[in-house]
Amino acid sequence: MSAQQAYSELTQTLKELAILNSCSGLLGWDQRTYMPRGGSKNRADQLGLIAGMVHEKFTSPRIGELLKQIEGTDLVKTYDSVEAANIREIRRRYDRQTKLPKALVEEFVKTTSMSEVAWETARAKSDFKSFAPWLEKVVALTKQIADCYGYKGEPYNALIDDYEPGMTVEEISTVFEKLRIDLVELNGKIRNGKKRPKVEIITRSYPVDLQRVFGESVAAAQGLDFNESRCDVTVHPFCSGMGPGDVRITTRYNPSRLNDALFGIMHETGHALYDSGLEREYYGLPCGDAASYGIHESQSRLWENQVGRSKEFWVYFLPQLKRIFRSSLDGVTVDEFYGAVNDSQPSYIRVEADEATYNLHILLRYELERAMMKGDLKAVDVAGEWNSRFKNYFGIEVDNDAHGCLQDVHWSAGLIAYFPSYSLGNLYSAQFFAKAKADMPGLMSQFERGEFSGLLQWLRTNIHKHGARYRPAELCKKVTGQPLSHKPLIDYMTAKYKEIYGF
Amino acid sequence: MSAQQAYSELTQTLKELAILNSCSGLLGWDQRTYMPRGGSKNRADQLGLIAGMVHEKFTSPRIGELLKQIEGTDLVKTYDSVEAANIREIRRRYDRQTKLPKALVEEFVKTTSMSEVAWETARAKSDFKSFAPWLEKVVALTKQIADCYGYKGEPYNALIDDYEPGMTVEEISTVFEKLRIDLVELNGKIRNGKKRPKVEIITRSYPVDLQRVFGESVAAAQGLDFNESRCDVTVHPFCSGMGPGDVRITTRYNPSRLNDALFGIMHETGHALYDSGLEREYYGLPCGDAASYGIHESQSRLWENQVGRSKEFWVYFLPQLKRIFRSSLDGVTVDEFYGAVNDSQPSYIRVEADEATYNLHILLRYELERAMMKGDLKAVDVAGEWNSRFKNYFGIEVDNDAHGCLQDVHWSAGLIAYFPSYSLGNLYSAQFFAKAKADMPGLMSQFERGEFSGLLQWLRTNIHKHGARYRPAELCKKVTGQPLSHKPLIDYMTAKYKEIYGF
Repeated sequence: MSAQQAYSELTQTLKELAILNSCSGLLGWDQRTYMPRGGSKNRADQLGLIAGMVHEKFTSPRIGELLKQIEGTDLVKTYDSVEAANIREIRRRYDRQTKLPKALVEEFVKTTSMSEVAWETARAKSDFKSFAPWLEKVVALTKQIADCYGYKGEPYNALIDDYEPGMTVEEISTVFEKLRIDLVELNGKIRNGKKRPKVEIITRSYPVDLQRVFGESVAAAQGLDFNESRCDVTVHPFCSGMGPGDVRITTRYNPSRLNDALFGIMHETGHALYDSGLEREYYGLPCGDAASYGIHESQSRLWENQVGRSKEFWVYFLPQLKRIFRSSLDGVTVDEFYGAVNDSQPSYIRVEADEATYNLHILLRYELERAMMKGDLKAVDVAGEWNSRFKNYFGIEVDNDAHGCLQDVHWSAGLIAYFPSYSLGNLYSAQFFAKAKADMPGLMSQFERGEFSGLLQWLRTNIHKHGARYRPAELCKKVTGQPLSHKPLIDYMTAKYKEIYGF
Repeated sequence: MSAQQAYSELTQTLKELAILNSCSGLLGWDQRTYMPRGGSKNRADQLGLIAGMVHEKFTSPRIGELLKQIEGTDLVKTYDSVEAANIREIRRRYDRQTKLPKALVEEFVKTTSMSEVAWETARAKSDFKSFAPWLEKVVALTKQIADCYGYKGEPYNALIDDYEPGMTVEEISTVFEKLRIDLVELNGKIRNGKKRPKVEIITRSYPVDLQRVFGESVAAAQGLDFNESRCDVTVHPFCSGMGPGDVRITTRYNPSRLNDALFGIMHETGHALYDSGLEREYYGLPCGDAASYGIHESQSRLWENQVGRSKEFWVYFLPQLKRIFRSSLDGVTVDEFYGAVNDSQPSYIRVEADEATYNLHILLRYELERAMMKGDLKAVDVAGEWNSRFKNYFGIEVDNDAHGCLQDVHWSAGLIAYFPSYSLGNLYSAQFFAKAKADMPGLMSQFERGEFSGLLQWLRTNIHKHGARYRPAELCKKVTGQPLSHKPLIDYMTAKYKEIYGF
């Protein structure tokens, strides 16, 4: 068998696996949008079965044989060719996955599917105690998984590769520590600033149906094709790809708060645009897959913040918003509105947090996750530990678990070590956007005219089309010419908040 | 290996297959409700892949070995024990399925998934020509399937077993011919009757949101548990089970016609109640599966017609309907409303047809299907043939293809030989309901009080709980003491229409 033949068989198999796996995309989307509660048990069985099948097929000895047939041949000699990148990344995933027994994979998927339902109930009742036993199970299974993978240093290191290939606790902690110091300083300046935005503007009456109409029109302006997408309502918004030609976003509406759904939709649309910008030709292969969760998040945050919370964006969209919501926005100026959507203050909910405080939410979760994985923090003690650290970071008392450690789906869904990707995404987004502005001097004035295709094209060319051809760190260097740094984010935020808060 | 061990392994395997197959339930539901158009190609791939996997696993030699280990042993010596019934029916399905090559199954599923999308477009444009090539493909593949199965007489006989195990063209034609003669006579009497219902009552203004509220309250009264179900909007309404604890109905609303959604919801709820009344303990096995499409349809038609179009039902529900729709129903009496929802006249659309004309729609389809399968009718000629036969049966000209041969999803979805089950379902429903009334003399007066649990319990005990333990013909005999007959349906309709039309 030639290397080319082996490569063909391998890619064919992986495409089939991607199709099978994409069924789980729909099963998960439905579970979080429309599934009647009674279907929970069967849904867990369905997800567990498919995960087990995908795992079994992907870790079959045949895949290992095919990789060996290809590795070291001319087909993969050019480092950043599609073939070399695919094989390098498939090898990494294969070596990781073959370390996990199928039974553990199935148990993990079933448990987290059930645990997610338990979390939803616990969150609705703001009752951490009822969720604690599930968290304990999830953490125990995750530790088993970490042990199977093996790691240097602490067990958390075993997990990061699932989200940020090539990254370590040590690297993350280094950049996070610099970020923390600057964030504390920035937040101090904001607290003591001479000006305050008129934040009540965004808490006026905004009927849900009209929010939906406006939000979807913004998503379309960003470039989302509603022939290949849709937007539904859920508890914890997400974006989910069901395979080529079908990537869906979700949101939640608050009729007396404009930010949540609007910026939520822009955020999820950023994810969806990344997914739909991946090369379909490579569907099922690393080169047609996202580079990392952090890179994915850089796309959502870039659209949500660098675009959606820019003044130029509202020069174009505020008049539209006024036509839709009429008296709710009478007499509001662009400067006032820009200030209001950038209001910064300590708050409970991560996904609703402003840019200046957002990363503090992540740092807190990162610390707790590491402690749980090390065994230094028991599941049952998470709520208490959360609340005391929250007080320390934000200066306010958590009033209930739904506003505290129950707010996020991740732990219930088994996504431990995911959170750092959010802050990494913020860092990447600022670094990418600074480069995009340098490459396209007229970019911000395009926003004033409601034109976003220039930006989308830049992202497609520089980021989306590469898929996972480069590791996140390589991609960052390739796109911006620099290694990852906290500086672009801090510079961007300082300039913005200086104007709004007058420090 | 003991027979008991083999039985355990077999049932375990079939339960896993049922879970895998239930993913297709969701994929299909989503395709017809929420999927963005761009997902069509990938959806076809997903459905094809799962169908192929299920087929491959179900037809594996291991299943044959296990069946042989069990057949002829004490475990299955009692004819109508769960074990004997399961093994008998699994054997029938296994023998059929092993005749089909996996590639043909996959091609059939992929083709029909794409063809269904083509049908939707063609129907929206009322353009049969654009759909004809797809129909041709589906018919050609279905012929291949019939050839694989083998048959006596005509190819249609090979297909019927998928819908009505044990039934033949000859039996169907015999009962359909008797039915046809009596229907023509009944419809003649109706046309010449001395009275006419005030049909405009049901074409007044009925806002969609309120129709939804009322329709779902009726479904709940029938016994549908909305913790295990939901009702969504679609083009061609259906009921779909996603596995235990999750069976969903769909409908379509017409704001100036009350019948479509209301009786549609009652109909689909009848299907859903059957599904949810199957024994969960036997999920994945014949005893936990429907007896046939005809028996399934008997449940939906019984609730839609014998219950929902009875006068007693409206004694209870008309006052509620009046409270909801207010002025649209001012001064309408129960007799008037009862007459209006039972108005009978020739019409284009099968699913909206009244009871007296409904089965003529089926007879027409049955004739065309048989002709297509025999090769006597080409796909491209179907619209013309439909229109000329329609004129003959109903005395009216078909004004466009959407009102003609494009109205139903079945052929596009590859469900040739499904249609007879609708008429068989009508026959069974009347025969079952006559027996239920005989068993429970106070049944109709329960309806006047909005009580339907007595009827549901009777259906659960006599029909649902058996699953496919008995063949449809056996079940009919067991429940009613009589073989299938067209008489109960004709007697029921004659009594109803005599009162309403005064003949």
